[in-house]
Amino acid sequence: MQFSSQLLESAVNAFSRLPGIGKKTALRLVLHLLKQDAAEVAQFSEVIARVRSEIRFCKKCNNISDADTCSICSNPMRKHNMVCVVETIRDVIAIESTQQYNGAYHVLGGVISPLDGVGPDQLYIDQLTERVKQDGTEEVIFALSPTIQGDTTIYYIQKKLQSLPLRITTIARGISFGGELEYADEMTLARSLQNRLPVESYVSSR
Amino acid sequence: MQFSSQLLESAVNAFSRLPGIGKKTALRLVLHLLKQDAAEVAQFSEVIARVRSEIRFCKKCNNISDADTCSICSNPMRKHNMVCVVETIRDVIAIESTQQYNGAYHVLGGVISPLDGVGPDQLYIDQLTERVKQDGTEEVIFALSPTIQGDTTIYYIQKKLQSLPLRITTIARGISFGGELEYADEMTLARSLQNRLPVESYVSSR
Repeated sequence: MQFSSQLLESAVNAFSRLPGIGKKTALRLVLHLLKQDAAEVAQFSEVIARVRSEIRFCKKCNNISDADTCSICSNPMRKHNMVCVVETIRDVIAIESTQQYNGAYHVLGGVISPLDGVGPDQLYIDQLTERVKQDGTEEVIFALSPTIQGDTTIYYIQKKLQSLPLRITTIARGISFGGELEYADEMTLARSLQNRLPVESYVSSR
Repeated sequence: MQFSSQLLESAVNAFSRLPGIGKKTALRLVLHLLKQDAAEVAQFSEVIARVRSEIRFCKKCNNISDADTCSICSNPMRKHNMVCVVETIRDVIAIESTQQYNGAYHVLGGVISPLDGVGPDQLYIDQLTERVKQDGTEEVIFALSPTIQGDTTIYYIQKKLQSLPLRITTIARGISFGGELEYADEMTLARSLQNRLPVESYVSSR
């Protein structure tokens, strides 16, 4: 692309460095910003600068936070004897959006994956075990990816926690709501048969 | 989406106001920025603020510019007796990228489209006719959309310019390079037959 303005070119280049945004989309975004209210664009620019310099990670659970401890860890209305272990901040947002969970979280930062060079030391596993011991946590719920790596991570952490007086659970695997049996993979179908539920509990949870 | 950080929420909202970017993509972009170098994010933020406050439109051709006249209008190496009339800045970038045109441009800001409430007065048509008279332009090349609206605009402007000693042309319409005849629409195929070229000129232009 040939630009007649240096500033336009640098703005397009800056946008096209974002993931999934090519030059043409970047140009469309910059031309859109040019048409917007000056105050709105100034605010957009400011929020980007602030998000990078001011956002911190919660000391307790590694969730994204505006302060030293996040709004979930510091909320007295939530049950802090329950810790849901997730991979990323995105998973916290996904679970929070269901509005079905009222406990605390622990963001691991990923799962154990030797092929990608991720061992237990790269994850916040020690922080989790320390926290569980100190806080007298009663239940640890794993909400990790249903993959070999996720299962390995669950197994590894469970070994570390098994001496403690804890209930250790994992979110249910099974057929998705609205999913069709014939298209489910064998592993999922097999697991959902093994972990079948009494109909009373299924009906009452709806 | 439920966020545990106000700042994250406002950043995601700001990104999701951009065209074609939903909440999930916005979140992905913000989390990407969080992982980047602080200096790089500060630069990104700055370029956004500057692009809105500093970019101007060329007094002569309405192209995007860093100064009062754009780098094309102020370039003495280009032929200023030739004006290519386009709809938007994006068309200027597209034509410049071919590196086949060495004249000046005139950005109309759209095409005449009564159904969308765009009449000749909303476009920079008077500015074009004034400019053509004053500069002693020798050729006006229309590079507008091949639509009824584009053709109407060409007809309207051509009527205004016809008393002047000018060559008025339009870019060729025809089968795209690599396009297949059987999938071309009738209008395009009919026009490309009417405007057929002697083979010598076709071969020499390759």
